[in-house]
Amino acid sequence: MSNLGLVRHAFSPPARPPLAETEMRVLEAQYCSYGDTVHYSEPAKIFARCEGSFIYDLENRPFLDLQMWYSAVNFGYANPRLNEALKRQIDTLPQVASQYLHREKIELAAAIGRDAEQKFGYKGRVHFNVGGSQAIEDSLKLVRNASRGKSLVFAFEGGYHGRTLAASAITSSYRYRRRYGHFGDRAQFIPFPYCFRCPYGKKREDCGLYCVDQFARLFDTEYCGVFDPQVGEAEYAAFYIEPIQGTGGYVIPPPGYFEKLAAVLEARRILLVDDEIQMGFYRAGKLWSIEQFNVRPDIIVFGKALTNGLNPLSGVWAREALINPEVFAPGSTHSTFNANPLGTAVALETLRMLEEQDYEQMTAQKGAYFLSGLRELKRRYRVIGDVDGIGMALRIEICEPSDSFTPAKAIVDRIVEEALKGDLEVAGKTYGLVLDIGGYYKNVITLAPALTISFDEIDLALQLLDRLLHRVAPD
Amino acid sequence: MSNLGLVRHAFSPPARPPLAETEMRVLEAQYCSYGDTVHYSEPAKIFARCEGSFIYDLENRPFLDLQMWYSAVNFGYANPRLNEALKRQIDTLPQVASQYLHREKIELAAAIGRDAEQKFGYKGRVHFNVGGSQAIEDSLKLVRNASRGKSLVFAFEGGYHGRTLAASAITSSYRYRRRYGHFGDRAQFIPFPYCFRCPYGKKREDCGLYCVDQFARLFDTEYCGVFDPQVGEAEYAAFYIEPIQGTGGYVIPPPGYFEKLAAVLEARRILLVDDEIQMGFYRAGKLWSIEQFNVRPDIIVFGKALTNGLNPLSGVWAREALINPEVFAPGSTHSTFNANPLGTAVALETLRMLEEQDYEQMTAQKGAYFLSGLRELKRRYRVIGDVDGIGMALRIEICEPSDSFTPAKAIVDRIVEEALKGDLEVAGKTYGLVLDIGGYYKNVITLAPALTISFDEIDLALQLLDRLLHRVAPD
Amino acid sequence: MSNLGLVRHAFSPPARPPLAETEMRVLEAQYCSYGDTVHYSEPAKIFARCEGSFIYDLENRPFLDLQMWYSAVNFGYANPRLNEALKRQIDTLPQVASQYLHREKIELAAAIGRDAEQKFGYKGRVHFNVGGSQAIEDSLKLVRNASRGKSLVFAFEGGYHGRTLAASAITSSYRYRRRYGHFGDRAQFIPFPYCFRCPYGKKREDCGLYCVDQFARLFDTEYCGVFDPQVGEAEYAAFYIEPIQGTGGYVIPPPGYFEKLAAVLEARRILLVDDEIQMGFYRAGKLWSIEQFNVRPDIIVFGKALTNGLNPLSGVWAREALINPEVFAPGSTHSTFNANPLGTAVALETLRMLEEQDYEQMTAQKGAYFLSGLRELKRRYRVIGDVDGIGMALRIEICEPSDSFTPAKAIVDRIVEEALKGDLEVAGKTYGLVLDIGGYYKNVITLAPALTISFDEIDLALQLLDRLLHRVAPD
Amino acid sequence: MSNLGLVRHAFSPPARPPLAETEMRVLEAQYCSYGDTVHYSEPAKIFARCEGSFIYDLENRPFLDLQMWYSAVNFGYANPRLNEALKRQIDTLPQVASQYLHREKIELAAAIGRDAEQKFGYKGRVHFNVGGSQAIEDSLKLVRNASRGKSLVFAFEGGYHGRTLAASAITSSYRYRRRYGHFGDRAQFIPFPYCFRCPYGKKREDCGLYCVDQFARLFDTEYCGVFDPQVGEAEYAAFYIEPIQGTGGYVIPPPGYFEKLAAVLEARRILLVDDEIQMGFYRAGKLWSIEQFNVRPDIIVFGKALTNGLNPLSGVWAREALINPEVFAPGSTHSTFNANPLGTAVALETLRMLEEQDYEQMTAQKGAYFLSGLRELKRRYRVIGDVDGIGMALRIEICEPSDSFTPAKAIVDRIVEEALKGDLEVAGKTYGLVLDIGGYYKNVITLAPALTISFDEIDLALQLLDRLLHRVAPD
Repeated sequence: MSNLGLVRHAFSPPARPPLAETEMRVLEAQYCSYGDTVHYSEPAKIFARCEGSFIYDLENRPFLDLQMWYSAVNFGYANPRLNEALKRQIDTLPQVASQYLHREKIELAAAIGRDAEQKFGYKGRVHFNVGGSQAIEDSLKLVRNASRGKSLVFAFEGGYHGRTLAASAITSSYRYRRRYGHFGDRAQFIPFPYCFRCPYGKKREDCGLYCVDQFARLFDTEYCGVFDPQVGEAEYAAFYIEPIQGTGGYVIPPPGYFEKLAAVLEARRILLVDDEIQMGFYRAGKLWSIEQFNVRPDIIVFGKALTNGLNPLSGVWAREALINPEVFAPGSTHSTFNANPLGTAVALETLRMLEEQDYEQMTAQKGAYFLSGLRELKRRYRVIGDVDGIGMALRIEICEPSDSFTPAKAIVDRIVEEALKGDLEVAGKTYGLVLDIGGYYKNVITLAPALTISFDEIDLALQLLDRLLHRVAPD
Repeated sequence: MSNLGLVRHAFSPPARPPLAETEMRVLEAQYCSYGDTVHYSEPAKIFARCEGSFIYDLENRPFLDLQMWYSAVNFGYANPRLNEALKRQIDTLPQVASQYLHREKIELAAAIGRDAEQKFGYKGRVHFNVGGSQAIEDSLKLVRNASRGKSLVFAFEGGYHGRTLAASAITSSYRYRRRYGHFGDRAQFIPFPYCFRCPYGKKREDCGLYCVDQFARLFDTEYCGVFDPQVGEAEYAAFYIEPIQGTGGYVIPPPGYFEKLAAVLEARRILLVDDEIQMGFYRAGKLWSIEQFNVRPDIIVFGKALTNGLNPLSGVWAREALINPEVFAPGSTHSTFNANPLGTAVALETLRMLEEQDYEQMTAQKGAYFLSGLRELKRRYRVIGDVDGIGMALRIEICEPSDSFTPAKAIVDRIVEEALKGDLEVAGKTYGLVLDIGGYYKNVITLAPALTISFDEIDLALQLLDRLLHRVAPD
Repeated sequence: MSNLGLVRHAFSPPARPPLAETEMRVLEAQYCSYGDTVHYSEPAKIFARCEGSFIYDLENRPFLDLQMWYSAVNFGYANPRLNEALKRQIDTLPQVASQYLHREKIELAAAIGRDAEQKFGYKGRVHFNVGGSQAIEDSLKLVRNASRGKSLVFAFEGGYHGRTLAASAITSSYRYRRRYGHFGDRAQFIPFPYCFRCPYGKKREDCGLYCVDQFARLFDTEYCGVFDPQVGEAEYAAFYIEPIQGTGGYVIPPPGYFEKLAAVLEARRILLVDDEIQMGFYRAGKLWSIEQFNVRPDIIVFGKALTNGLNPLSGVWAREALINPEVFAPGSTHSTFNANPLGTAVALETLRMLEEQDYEQMTAQKGAYFLSGLRELKRRYRVIGDVDGIGMALRIEICEPSDSFTPAKAIVDRIVEEALKGDLEVAGKTYGLVLDIGGYYKNVITLAPALTISFDEIDLALQLLDRLLHRVAPD
Repeated sequence: MSNLGLVRHAFSPPARPPLAETEMRVLEAQYCSYGDTVHYSEPAKIFARCEGSFIYDLENRPFLDLQMWYSAVNFGYANPRLNEALKRQIDTLPQVASQYLHREKIELAAAIGRDAEQKFGYKGRVHFNVGGSQAIEDSLKLVRNASRGKSLVFAFEGGYHGRTLAASAITSSYRYRRRYGHFGDRAQFIPFPYCFRCPYGKKREDCGLYCVDQFARLFDTEYCGVFDPQVGEAEYAAFYIEPIQGTGGYVIPPPGYFEKLAAVLEARRILLVDDEIQMGFYRAGKLWSIEQFNVRPDIIVFGKALTNGLNPLSGVWAREALINPEVFAPGSTHSTFNANPLGTAVALETLRMLEEQDYEQMTAQKGAYFLSGLRELKRRYRVIGDVDGIGMALRIEICEPSDSFTPAKAIVDRIVEEALKGDLEVAGKTYGLVLDIGGYYKNVITLAPALTISFDEIDLALQLLDRLLHRVAPD
């Protein structure tokens, strides 16, 4: 083979008999960036197969997965119906440039738009992209456009909206920005109603939603820094929320919180942008988690579970006033894989599936069952400071056993590590457990089981958690 | 079914007998954002099926595609080998969270890393993401991190690097930024060596690469605004290039240009970031188009054709010094679909395929053949101001017939429109043609045929172009 | 006279007999920008002469001045000693370029530097400029330089640091930024301990300085958005304070506040920048108002009263580590009028004067006397919600008589307007009163009498205030 | 004296017998910031007295000053008429808060406004401030306000507009920004027509103002990065110019340059902001240097010589549309020393003086005389590469004698150093010479003699320069 120019590429075709694990680890150490989250714990786990609520390692050991790819796989690993939909599309129209139309894109947009119209009473439109961060970027474009160029927004402490640069600017963790210089569009972060650890030291029973009053106070005078009462204009164009914080530790706000907050925002003409990337698609018991809180968003951003972790697809829904063709004209944004046919085909099948079965009831029932099991565990283990849940988004906050309050990151790290060993026994069989950690102090086990999990599997999950807690923090 | 909280979702399942075209258009007008590029021309074309070099509309009319999803489908629509690889992965490990490892990710990173190592003589690592813009964002993180927080970079006039906010800041078109307020990290745009329309009014024969001298002049004194000679430090951390401009109109720089430019950058310790999103994977005759120019990049960004338009996957390769785990530590960035298993499986198969066949020779031969046909057309149509090509990236610049130089956007628009009618006859059969427009003046037909196109299909393409030109601009 | 090029300038020399008031008002309406604060009230007052604590209008009516050019004229209008110093310098070295030295600059820097050294125990240096905002800009350069380029800082709600763009970015009022687009270096504003209207609704008696705890909370985890505990680095490089807020309404913080705050900052290596532009030079009873609070600043910014409102001079004092010639090298900044000889000469005389008399005792005594008079007024007028004072910085907060708490801007506007009529009678003589308004709600009369005011004049001031209050808000 | 609180201030009153020079130097090294330009050369020169064109050191040696405080003292050191005006004001109204009016402010604004009205045919208004940078800041506010928040502007390579942060962002030298992190509002710098060293390598005779064409080219298509032709909107709100560059080396543009540039700007609705801080007040032979170029600015910024280096005063004049009370409402900006009475009084006297004498003719004659002398020197010294001048702004570009072109910074440094020794003999008397260095390569002696210099003194200046050149670079 000729050798034009430089060296001809040299992919050194990997030996077709599959690489042994050690070889893989050597290659990974040499050629893979460590900048992602793989090396948060060592050695990184390698998985080879998945199905339903289980994922299997190279030795084919089953791990019950209670995080489901950070809630991207709500409908179970290798869901037959969705896999089949993907294969069908591969066989018809696997590719088409995003400047042309295809049936699935249109039907999908219409399904989402009609649903929102009925629920919120607003007409709106959908704009697709690929990956949650890119949908966040699109939403920022809508916000900046609607506010004639304002690039400052409010967001929550503990909030997470992605890791592109603009998404990092509105994501609370300073660690995500630290290496990357100046962020001129950094959000102003507002305390989230994390009542178990109220930032203001209040008690939920009698706080009167003091936290919203604190936010509202910012608009009292121009000297609070964000508002000019003379002209009724705010320096901040929008408030980005996760109704239930994801990375922040599946924190559930108290009743009335968002209603009161939304009233403040509406009065100051500040847009409410609802990030449903993690909590959407029935994770929190409703299609959109915000439906739990009696609030109407101006923009919804979604992604992840829309395609059940298959071909990525994300998007924004926005009120007509923000996204109609006059104000958000052709070419306002673009992405090669925007509305890609494989993604839209799977997504459309997802929505049909949701239509055909009562996911609301199902998630309410399974979630309640799981949560009551967690409450039982809390009664038995002092290392559990708090458990809570809404729909199938559940949390276990691990604390020092001495006070069941002080965050105990070291203990939770050990729990997760032990869970990944794959040696927990229940009823004569051996399992591992896949858990994810979240929370401001990284001491919260955030549980996002498949919505398709069976009650037996929930029992198994609780038994495995019991084994784990007993092993790591018995008293 | 109960109706908790708000309305229960109301997807109003689309009637299972497929919607008629008119119904689709009504829904699209109601629920789809027009902010993407679909409505650049009206009515938008709807496609239903694709295979090889052809894509078919709702009436099953064949369209020979000469843009292949902006060069994302280099290996032909519905490529059987790659489709098969995708299906295999769907059946084994379709999903796995990005904090865990799987075989395909590792093998893919190793293949890319080893190839670069051989070609450029540098060890490096690969970081995956999903969508080209997100890989650009990752590259910006690498650049900012390496420069201790500098967020200013050079980029080219006519350059395109994506549409996230940070990518828009380094993409030349002001139209992409206009609606969105302030871009504090806007690139400084440097004229590209677009020799057919030399920005400096020079002639390629005797210009002595004056354009690089003009760039180098910026470093002469601190008063040119970008450099402090006392300490040898530049205000700009990197130069983002497309070796051959994509959206800019498949403009090919003259010999020696990049070598001379790279020498200036190296002397000022400014990183060279090579965006191969559109030109990578043999579009320009080499795996990376920069291989045509005898230059070693610090960072390569890639996407699109890596998965042939199937499950999106993108990535960056960077020199070890920029990306080793010390400087780009775990958690430096993240994305849910980073290194997703479906994408990596397809990508790995792509690379194996490239290994097994001599794409370099193939693209050189087909490209030369196609280009000679275009040159023949240029001789016959005064409306063609310029044709050029490298590998399978070809361009036809449409100009006023009066001088074969003045950009003729209206004519090219008509050409594209006619092409989409699907009524061009060759040898008794009826075809359409899918063409893409690029160029600073939107008067360039940028040709990106499938690399798998046959010589007969190239002949057909030339005949269809002839028909078109004859119809639209006969003299 | 010849007329080269365009028109020769046409100053139309104002008729040497002075313009009548109406003529002046006509010219002002035609040629003066209204963008300053002159037209906050109409018609703007014109003054013609000043002396001691009095300023006189065109009809030679005396106005007792209780604002003294926003505390720039601490030593009385037309102070003979300082005026004389200025004239002496005019006669010797009125001009010298700022790249050369002159005696007064050196002696002045040494005087300020030695004083700080004794008081705070740090060696430091002084950098001069002209105008408070420009000194703030210099301080921002010191901060950014010391933090390797960080441009984000904390500042207080209600804080005021000037009106250049960068100073506006750290000044709380959004009104000052609203017209001017994006401020990428906008400060994060922290509630000031304005105990009369505690932002947290606490009571000073038992709050335990809850407000500092709230600030300290921001450093608890990375998810509060400003700190990365793993590396101990903050996103914010400094905290800009006015120990007593000026424009904010002469608000005096409670005991212990700044000590507790400074401890938080020191632990996170965040610089404390002390803006003494309005409160410096004994306005608050000490040379620097921060001396009242047992805290050592990293940087002091000063201006205004340094030259008693004569030739402007401002400056920064900074700890040696921040300003030594290694880190803040020659040419780091510059200003034509930096260290101008007229300004430094007056300033040096100011410091000699301060050395020779016990201003600390004097301001303590006069301030206490004035404050006790204000307290008496408060007892008699329900429209006075709060009076307070430290040194010769005093405040009267005007509120609705119904609750003596609700801010009553309209009433205070009327008070100030009536005061400017110049028709208040005391002991058979007729006076006006010059008052300034401050406060978050623009309902605070901020009193900054000349430090040289006599006890008799204080009595007169109290009588005039009594007349005014009686006229405007008798019950 | 009591010691309340901390230490009582400790100014350690400098011994009243004046400090010896060594003592001064010790104090300076200890307490003065070196961040200004004093320590560009060592040891810094100390001056003690000044008069007319001469400034005297501690030993009373006379130095003929050819830089006059960077053109701030156009009317001669200690100008009796202006000094007297200052003293008169000291004796009547030395102080008045900027929210009140005084006669001199109004008359001064009217004089400037009427003059501009006659010359440019536009009505406009004047806004005062203190220090050139602050006036630049005010002009930026006008620009941002008029463009609904755009903060990007064009400026020239070699341009200088001050050293506040926002002024540094539009000042070309990267050295001024390097230490201070990110500048999100950094100007795009355009090559200045520095014909002696044409950035494009053209010759003035036949270039056809190629440089303006290059600038105009940026607006050809959206892909040049600054303009959206579809809507006729530019990313850049204004172009900041010095008609003759000051710090840039007193570079004079060729005929027709600004007319052609202004036409481009007007067509794209980009404001032309004329910085006259250094060249205003007849330095370049007209009140405003732009009058030499037949162009009408939208905004003029001025400072320095307005008060002849006495009490600083600066300002902007702007067209009514940009500054009328509707768009630039009360409180849009503010500065304590805005329109200070001492400054306005001197400035008004300056304008009266300019009215009474024909400065245009005077500066033309003296400038021509001086320039012919410089040309004679150029003929005799190969170290002089270029001399040029307009009005009383003159330049000598010092180059390597070998080619009279290569910039020779080391030689010019030695010239300046020798000049400051004060040992040059002419006609039996001993003199020094005060020279300033400018230019992109810091190899230009920028001559700004007092406009009041006599022809005899010009002769002396030429003789002294001759002595110097003979000493340093004889061949």
